[in-house]
Amino acid sequence: MMQENAIEACIVPTSDSHQGEYVASHFKFRKYLSGFTGSAGTLVIGKDKAGLWTDSRYYLQAEQELRGSGIDLYKTTLPETPGIPEWIAGMNYRSVGIDGEVFAARDALKMCKVFNKQAIRLIDNFKPYALVWPERPSLPDSPLSVFPLKYAGKSVEEKLRELRAELSRQGADYLPVSGLDDIAWLFNLRGSDVDFNPVGLAFALISPDTNKLYTDKKKLDNSTLSYLKQNNIQLSEYTSLYADLDKLPAGAAVFTDTARINYSIYNHIPSHCRRVEGTTPTTALKSVKNPVEIAGFRTAMQKEGVALLRFWRWFEAALEEGKEFYETDLVRKMSEFRLEQENCKGDSFYSIISYNEHGAIVHYSPSESTKARILPDGYLLVDTGGQYLEGTTDITRTFSLYRGATPGEFKQDYARILKGNIALTECIFPSHTRGSQLDIMARQFLWKDLLQYGHGTCHGVGHFLNVHEGPQSIRMEENPEIIKAGMVMSNEPGIYRAGKYGLRIENMMLVVEKGESEFGQFLGFETLSLCPLDLKAIDKSYYTRREIDWINTYQRNVYNQLSLLLSEEEKVWLASKTKEI
Amino acid sequence: MMQENAIEACIVPTSDSHQGEYVASHFKFRKYLSGFTGSAGTLVIGKDKAGLWTDSRYYLQAEQELRGSGIDLYKTTLPETPGIPEWIAGMNYRSVGIDGEVFAARDALKMCKVFNKQAIRLIDNFKPYALVWPERPSLPDSPLSVFPLKYAGKSVEEKLRELRAELSRQGADYLPVSGLDDIAWLFNLRGSDVDFNPVGLAFALISPDTNKLYTDKKKLDNSTLSYLKQNNIQLSEYTSLYADLDKLPAGAAVFTDTARINYSIYNHIPSHCRRVEGTTPTTALKSVKNPVEIAGFRTAMQKEGVALLRFWRWFEAALEEGKEFYETDLVRKMSEFRLEQENCKGDSFYSIISYNEHGAIVHYSPSESTKARILPDGYLLVDTGGQYLEGTTDITRTFSLYRGATPGEFKQDYARILKGNIALTECIFPSHTRGSQLDIMARQFLWKDLLQYGHGTCHGVGHFLNVHEGPQSIRMEENPEIIKAGMVMSNEPGIYRAGKYGLRIENMMLVVEKGESEFGQFLGFETLSLCPLDLKAIDKSYYTRREIDWINTYQRNVYNQLSLLLSEEEKVWLASKTKEI
Repeated sequence: MMQENAIEACIVPTSDSHQGEYVASHFKFRKYLSGFTGSAGTLVIGKDKAGLWTDSRYYLQAEQELRGSGIDLYKTTLPETPGIPEWIAGMNYRSVGIDGEVFAARDALKMCKVFNKQAIRLIDNFKPYALVWPERPSLPDSPLSVFPLKYAGKSVEEKLRELRAELSRQGADYLPVSGLDDIAWLFNLRGSDVDFNPVGLAFALISPDTNKLYTDKKKLDNSTLSYLKQNNIQLSEYTSLYADLDKLPAGAAVFTDTARINYSIYNHIPSHCRRVEGTTPTTALKSVKNPVEIAGFRTAMQKEGVALLRFWRWFEAALEEGKEFYETDLVRKMSEFRLEQENCKGDSFYSIISYNEHGAIVHYSPSESTKARILPDGYLLVDTGGQYLEGTTDITRTFSLYRGATPGEFKQDYARILKGNIALTECIFPSHTRGSQLDIMARQFLWKDLLQYGHGTCHGVGHFLNVHEGPQSIRMEENPEIIKAGMVMSNEPGIYRAGKYGLRIENMMLVVEKGESEFGQFLGFETLSLCPLDLKAIDKSYYTRREIDWINTYQRNVYNQLSLLLSEEEKVWLASKTKEI
Repeated sequence: MMQENAIEACIVPTSDSHQGEYVASHFKFRKYLSGFTGSAGTLVIGKDKAGLWTDSRYYLQAEQELRGSGIDLYKTTLPETPGIPEWIAGMNYRSVGIDGEVFAARDALKMCKVFNKQAIRLIDNFKPYALVWPERPSLPDSPLSVFPLKYAGKSVEEKLRELRAELSRQGADYLPVSGLDDIAWLFNLRGSDVDFNPVGLAFALISPDTNKLYTDKKKLDNSTLSYLKQNNIQLSEYTSLYADLDKLPAGAAVFTDTARINYSIYNHIPSHCRRVEGTTPTTALKSVKNPVEIAGFRTAMQKEGVALLRFWRWFEAALEEGKEFYETDLVRKMSEFRLEQENCKGDSFYSIISYNEHGAIVHYSPSESTKARILPDGYLLVDTGGQYLEGTTDITRTFSLYRGATPGEFKQDYARILKGNIALTECIFPSHTRGSQLDIMARQFLWKDLLQYGHGTCHGVGHFLNVHEGPQSIRMEENPEIIKAGMVMSNEPGIYRAGKYGLRIENMMLVVEKGESEFGQFLGFETLSLCPLDLKAIDKSYYTRREIDWINTYQRNVYNQLSLLLSEEEKVWLASKTKEI
């Protein structure tokens, strides 16, 4: 097919048409072609050579899965590894085919710069699926249904009004939306087309006088159809967005967020239109939670807290009884406890439950082939989260499983992490502060001892939506998005001791107003997550008086908020886990 | 002249051809035309209307100085004030004249974007000086002389070798340099063409096989001429840079730092050349001090420390004796004490010495018309610095002049500032950290109480060069330049209580290596400045044990380093100022 189309190299990325973290199997062409199953990686097939580019999380896995395929592995985190466009230019391929629908516009535009310099031709609608992938799974067709106002907290009408005000403020008439969570948020709809994210495949196009939803009609029942009608949302076929873009009138100002639309959307915006560049306003509006959503998060935290401590109590007993169980059993068990809670719709991601040295592998995901047996006198890292109608949760706790005293090294590391977590939670900052300005608060106690962690400190969290949500973040890298009151974020410093253990403490936080002065508005954080810190890991001598007070206040709050939902036996157990230090 | 040249508006900025902080009187055309004497402001003369754009520091002064001139004042810090190009477009002027030689390329390019959209024509070589400014001062012709290697620490040969390696690393063949301090640093020359900065008017052009210095031959004596010859530096007339740029060969890669070259230089780079954009490598290389420069800074700090404490002691006695003296007297006196020190060449900026409410005006500069009389029971802010052959200094101390106890409000503010200053000095961070990641360390204790200061926290400091030196900084705004070992920077949090006092504590710091681990190199700071903190302003109860230790260690170090250079009487006095708390 490449030969027929005079294409000398084609590039197959991991992403779908919506640039989400999870993709439906319909889009897993890279996995199908290469056999590599990792969640990140790009395949390049040249006329006489093929390569797969992936990062350090997947080196081992990719080597195993690519063995015998004839595909070379390119390790993106090594400085000597060429970029994909540079490699293509070096191979002297003169024409490159991609499916523009599965490339973020920004990435494709970056590649184009290199290709243009080298006079390499880009064919951006190369879609060899029909011939090459006969058994391609069809698009997912799970239902898209109404997310009740009592959970969403804001009507579609109001959201559309706010969105139009924002578009007009930024001088734009039209907004194509392709983020599945943005569309779910805007229209108060939820689906189940991809793993862990309660969203459905769709596009949207907001015009001065229409609100178009592009999705498969099969996904909608009569009540949803009438809901759309009531809310003045016009329905179109999933892929007809592209044709509608072609028809945009001359002079129209079209909002264009190259990080959040695919390259085909970008190319279908007619050249007689004007592009208004920026962060998609739905992404920005969605990140600030409304009072109902915030109240919902608090409810979800209580339910998650009960599930977490039932899980903890169960696993502590099982350990004591000498039962044989593995990391994967804990993943399953955690889901079970969570699903017992009302309005719980499942996990918000595949739990990272890792024992001892597995904890030091930051993106470790327990599987049948890797699972470790849990034994006492070790450490367990549990990073887990749930999807509740009231909100999405994400938490990490690291437990000492020692029957006697926990080794001092671990307690010192625990202090480095917990002190950073507290310092970030406690900090107060002016409005208009960016995440990179705050990041050091969480890292300072590690840096003092020449330690570091390689991931970000905080990500946004969706409301019964994606557990990783933008546009804000707190990390070392610059991100121009500011932190705003009403945002919900994680706070997750960690430390990873290769061959020994990983240690991370993650709480979700709400950004709150802290007061106003002649210098403007100041903001701060309020911790939302409700699960005790492991007292066995806390050596008081590492903490200041203020930090000890913080810990005791936090533990007391966990007890007060959860005890009403517990049996007498559980209450006693929780009291022992939250006693004052 | 505008009519003759068919120009409907002309723009006259404050800057010279080198984008420095201080400009020679030859370039003070804006001041000549408008009568406004402030150090920042842009004059626009339209065919039927004129305006001056300046910031909040100068509103009062500009109103007074512009009175009766027919020039309107535009306050740049007000949101409703139009930008200059937007104002010109709004006035419907169709052609704009500027002297491209006195505009930073980046600023001119930004204006061009607006002008192009509106089809406004830009004439970039409008130079009405001869007719309009008959008594224009000629270019300064003070000597440019050799800065001895024993102070500079690195030969021109070595600097050129390092510079060429860096140019080649960045893929550039040619480098035009217009920063006066960059040229002084590169060729180990010093001059006195502008106030406070020991530099001389010149350009440079580094080619693969020549090192050209463009300056007035009159500035060079025979020994300097032979020094240039020895070092393979070719001499050309000051303004012949432009013609030389015109002759650059086709395909040449020319380093282009639009923030640091003027618009005429930018335009004289032929279109058949390729531009390599970035931060001028001399600016980056100069910012990392060599061991001789670092040792020199330590010597300069001792001399400055002696001058400061003689000044302090004198003024304390004068105050006690009830002598009548004013802020301006202190500025003069400080210079006198400083000039008594060996190798001192004067002040590194006009001292900000401000009493009580004057301290709250961040850019206050005492003058005959504003000077306050210094009386006891008040506060004095002293921000001052010197030029020594061994290094440039910059320090701020704020003193309580209270005879009895200092008011608690001031002591609390002093703690907020000093705690921030210490926290920043003490922090440890990975190499590749940017300034905006560290800034919160200095501000956190203010932010906790909803307080803030409106200036940056740290700027680079030159070595017997400019007291404000780039490219690095520590401030809230993002600056992609990383902090490197060997950089010398200020650390100057402050707080400003309108109508009462200003309080700032500034020390210079050296960036030092703190060790290496599996996570790479870590850096930290070492305080260089030697002047006691005012014990009368310190209430111990606000500080942690660690902070008190830091203060005592600092004071003890000041005593140890300075006492050898003092008389017995002075030693006793210094001991009283540095006694343990």
